[in-house]
Amino acid sequence: MSNRATGVEDARHRVTELIRDARICLLTTTAVDGRLVSRPMGLQAAEFDGDLWFFTYANSAKIRQIRVNPQVNVGFSDQRHHAWVSVAGTAAEEWDRDRAERLWHPLLRTWFPDGPDTPGLTLLKVHAGTAEYWDSPGGAMVTLVGLARAAVTGRPPQPGENREVGY
Amino acid sequence: MSNRATGVEDARHRVTELIRDARICLLTTTAVDGRLVSRPMGLQAAEFDGDLWFFTYANSAKIRQIRVNPQVNVGFSDQRHHAWVSVAGTAAEEWDRDRAERLWHPLLRTWFPDGPDTPGLTLLKVHAGTAEYWDSPGGAMVTLVGLARAAVTGRPPQPGENREVGY
Repeated sequence: MSNRATGVEDARHRVTELIRDARICLLTTTAVDGRLVSRPMGLQAAEFDGDLWFFTYANSAKIRQIRVNPQVNVGFSDQRHHAWVSVAGTAAEEWDRDRAERLWHPLLRTWFPDGPDTPGLTLLKVHAGTAEYWDSPGGAMVTLVGLARAAVTGRPPQPGENREVGY
Repeated sequence: MSNRATGVEDARHRVTELIRDARICLLTTTAVDGRLVSRPMGLQAAEFDGDLWFFTYANSAKIRQIRVNPQVNVGFSDQRHHAWVSVAGTAAEEWDRDRAERLWHPLLRTWFPDGPDTPGLTLLKVHAGTAEYWDSPGGAMVTLVGLARAAVTGRPPQPGENREVGY
């Protein structure tokens, strides 16, 4: 039981690390016509407690789309480390001036020229339901988990190790 | 009119380039419970004519999911060039032994040990409806299109250039 809990904690820690390394993600939403559409987004939150935060405009397509269907996917690719994270969750617009100040970064002025006072600025919150991650053969997690599994089962290490973490 | 057509051809060419550079993508599907789920996939087709092909197992979750809802998104991140491509399309299982031979690559043996004869192997075809791409400030497309637009409109170059291409 405690081993299992530790495994989940390790997995959460690894997901947080992978997300922090990736920084830019692909946010996928369902368009009103049913198409799945995605766009690159910069992630604002350095720590991942189950919620991901993004700056966007209140009149953007993604905000309209999540009002109709709040299910979203946030995908992270860390090509340098050959690692990927997929977060399935629900999105909501949640403007909070204090939070905007805390999450603000000067680089955001390129998109939002007046800082947290930019007219129409809002915050998009994604509450993670499940997160999955993949480490490819070169990744540390595969070396550890894949080899450990091979030792136990006699099967060769898997090309990518995939674990699902509930939030 | 011819200028416009050339622009679309250029955009298609750039999307093909970006896809070829990225190679690994995130394939997003809708799970039966409504969640949007994604996973990293290796892309098999070197040329992009509007269809993307993937090897997978016929009994995999993604094949079950596209039978219920064929709408998918294929997202490419080229972090080295700060470029992203988002393809919205419809997916179908389409096994074809000859095509499997043509698309086969030795690296795939890691996942499909018996090559094109691996039991349960199938092909997933994504027919692209629309593709969007982004080049960040350092990218060639932004320099060209962004500056050209600034010259025409007097507006400053955009931080990222985003064009949609219909297939």
